[in-house]
Amino acid sequence: MKNQTIYPLIIIGGGPAGLTASIYASRYGIKNLLLTESPGGTIAYSHSVGNWPSEIEISGIELTQKFEKSARHYGGEIEYEKVVLINKKADLFEILTNENHTFLAKAILLTIGTKRRKLNIESEAKFINHGVNYCATCDGSLYKNKTVVVVGGGNAGVGSALILSKIAKKIYLLESLPELRAEKVWLDDLAKTETEIILNNQIIEIAGDKEVEKIILAKDYNGSREIKTDAVFVEIGVNPQSDLVDALNLEKDEWGYVKVNPKQLTSVPGIWAAGDITSESDHFQQVLTACAEGAIAINSINQFLKK
Amino acid sequence: MKNQTIYPLIIIGGGPAGLTASIYASRYGIKNLLLTESPGGTIAYSHSVGNWPSEIEISGIELTQKFEKSARHYGGEIEYEKVVLINKKADLFEILTNENHTFLAKAILLTIGTKRRKLNIESEAKFINHGVNYCATCDGSLYKNKTVVVVGGGNAGVGSALILSKIAKKIYLLESLPELRAEKVWLDDLAKTETEIILNNQIIEIAGDKEVEKIILAKDYNGSREIKTDAVFVEIGVNPQSDLVDALNLEKDEWGYVKVNPKQLTSVPGIWAAGDITSESDHFQQVLTACAEGAIAINSINQFLKK
Repeated sequence: MKNQTIYPLIIIGGGPAGLTASIYASRYGIKNLLLTESPGGTIAYSHSVGNWPSEIEISGIELTQKFEKSARHYGGEIEYEKVVLINKKADLFEILTNENHTFLAKAILLTIGTKRRKLNIESEAKFINHGVNYCATCDGSLYKNKTVVVVGGGNAGVGSALILSKIAKKIYLLESLPELRAEKVWLDDLAKTETEIILNNQIIEIAGDKEVEKIILAKDYNGSREIKTDAVFVEIGVNPQSDLVDALNLEKDEWGYVKVNPKQLTSVPGIWAAGDITSESDHFQQVLTACAEGAIAINSINQFLKK
Repeated sequence: MKNQTIYPLIIIGGGPAGLTASIYASRYGIKNLLLTESPGGTIAYSHSVGNWPSEIEISGIELTQKFEKSARHYGGEIEYEKVVLINKKADLFEILTNENHTFLAKAILLTIGTKRRKLNIESEAKFINHGVNYCATCDGSLYKNKTVVVVGGGNAGVGSALILSKIAKKIYLLESLPELRAEKVWLDDLAKTETEIILNNQIIEIAGDKEVEKIILAKDYNGSREIKTDAVFVEIGVNPQSDLVDALNLEKDEWGYVKVNPKQLTSVPGIWAAGDITSESDHFQQVLTACAEGAIAINSINQFLKK
């Protein structure tokens, strides 16, 4: 190891928790580097955010761009690299990225969030990028004037149906429970579209030649188990990211979220976690709760680094 | 009791926690009324907020005005009245204000925050509004080209010195500890002003005829215990608001903050609390943590009201 920069703090993950943490760290005078595979975190895929209190309505991508602008303004460094390995070396952490760069840090803040849940049916994997999608904002435009099925009746599913309602010709929204679970404002917006809602049912198979052509339902709907469609958008929630968490042997709760104490410290000294990856904030995964956890973590890291 | 509106939720307190809660409640379709003595909460007095991640820099008052605009946009009602009494009546709470209005609610969210700490020396009370002040943003302009003493070396004190540096001719900043405790960005700004910093010392008396004329220090400073000044700004932190809390018999922690569970529920069923008044967020009193607590509380209140 040559004369490599030792960062007091390296933040892993570029969503609201990580970017807020960078702002707080810089304002405390803590030199910090943020490493993230891509900018913005999960919220960047949201077509509209209405509960960020200083904005009546803003797209997820615009909101995170504002965060990133603030983080850079206050001196935070940001590199778009995926962290693949973290080694403990005496009092330091050595961080290796997919670009084969290594970075050294005294403290680590993990803000790596969640990944989208899959249907976990056999035919799903076959059609990924051939009609099976996990992001309406990203891939919706491929289905102009076509038919799409959105799976999931929470905010993510309803939000996706709303995005697609401006693009696709016909939309089915499929929910396994007897009712949709999205916020009322979203349901009100949905009611203004011609989305066809199917409750109490689920997909058991996706079929087609090379591209998705139809889905097979578990139960009859309008006298048939088949619906012809050009695409399936899977929006059934998220699971915590686990690769780095498992490698670092961090304690997790029963759903796989990283356990932290009230200062956002994990079970491993020197490693804090904040945002959707943690068990905090009553598991209420919001931009605001992620940001608040990032701020609380930095308050604790600041005490730690002063010692 | 005539045919009075029963609000599913009444929020008491108009700072970031309360306003965020109103936004979340409205978006869940929960009709809500927010009662507050004055708009904005503590942050409204801050000359500059740099750690609200979607804004590089914004004044506290502008920030809370944005929150209030969102809250009204989504349907939250806001009345500027001070709540003086809360009675439990069967399954409802009856809320009485200083304007002699009564309101009924199924659930209450307390977001009443903190009040400024006083020096608690005898001569302090005598000069309130005659040179003793608790808000540089509000009263700083009275001291154009005059001499002022700011007491307190945290963010509030240093922030006040920065505001006053653009108004007053001479500023002393007095801190009882051996160092200032404000964030580094604020200390950097302070270093650019001609503020005279006095550490390790404190005021034991404020003297003058009708208006403040001088302070008496506990220890010699430059060979004297006296400093001539036109004003004293007291910025030594906050205590939790206690009037309603005590009347409702809510459980408190050792510093007087309202104890809440991870869902922000207090020890009294039907009453939630969020923001600076609570023991949550590791006592880190930030706009972000207040907002996050407000959001978490509404998530829980929404479940409660559905039953």
